[in-house]
Amino acid sequence: MVSPELLRRFPFFASLDEKQLEQLAMISHEKDYPKGTLLVKENTAATLLALLVEGDIDLIFSGGGEGAISNALVGSIAPGEVYGVSSLIEPYRYTATVRATLPVKVIEMDGVALRVMVEKDAKLGYIMMRNVAIAVLERLKYTQVELAAARA
Amino acid sequence: MVSPELLRRFPFFASLDEKQLEQLAMISHEKDYPKGTLLVKENTAATLLALLVEGDIDLIFSGGGEGAISNALVGSIAPGEVYGVSSLIEPYRYTATVRATLPVKVIEMDGVALRVMVEKDAKLGYIMMRNVAIAVLERLKYTQVELAAARA
Repeated sequence: MVSPELLRRFPFFASLDEKQLEQLAMISHEKDYPKGTLLVKENTAATLLALLVEGDIDLIFSGGGEGAISNALVGSIAPGEVYGVSSLIEPYRYTATVRATLPVKVIEMDGVALRVMVEKDAKLGYIMMRNVAIAVLERLKYTQVELAAARA
Repeated sequence: MVSPELLRRFPFFASLDEKQLEQLAMISHEKDYPKGTLLVKENTAATLLALLVEGDIDLIFSGGGEGAISNALVGSIAPGEVYGVSSLIEPYRYTATVRATLPVKVIEMDGVALRVMVEKDAKLGYIMMRNVAIAVLERLKYTQVELAAARA
């Protein structure tokens, strides 16, 4: 586990109370990975929700085997941002590959344990889902800007 | 208001119980708009969460005044899909313009009333935020595919 104080530093965990932070801290681990590590693989079972503490991460989309598209860079994650939100959203499969472009420090949360927690505790579930929705909407906005630029 | 039965037809309202559907039906209105209507304007206060019942809708990104990008098409909405999810997510401002490309029938929910409801009722809040996160993640996946294609 990690300390609840570590989680509290990040806006993603904002509005969670002491008890909720303790619950999340119990299913969280701090990990270091070298540059180049594939932290998450597209279309595999989403078992981790993770937050980047230090380093830099690329989001890569394989193109799903459809012709010309192949391993396109479709975004990046900066410290303080989360990845693996598919661990909380059916069908619980990662939608992109996540690669460390620098040595990274991350906080990994057990996605299966987290799913049980949010199903049991609607208050925790509401806050976590709202924070996930905020993170995904932020990424969507970024991707729309990139798409508009690519088409300009 | 609309009938709870109307809402029940759409997967977006899946897993809501009878009472929750009734609550939402009370703040919902069915509306028809002609082709070409700007249903939502980017960067204005997000006061409606809406679901497309019939027709077709484009999502347009202005480029925020940044140079070459201007009114780029960044997605579309099909019947059964929602728009205006920013009405539930701080800072409650629409992130794209939504334009009817055909005559449309939509269900509009009062976003301010909805925010009060989800803050008061965590169970409703959890389900609505989860369904919003699912919708936004679905749109993100689509946008990533488009971006990968544009860059290929």
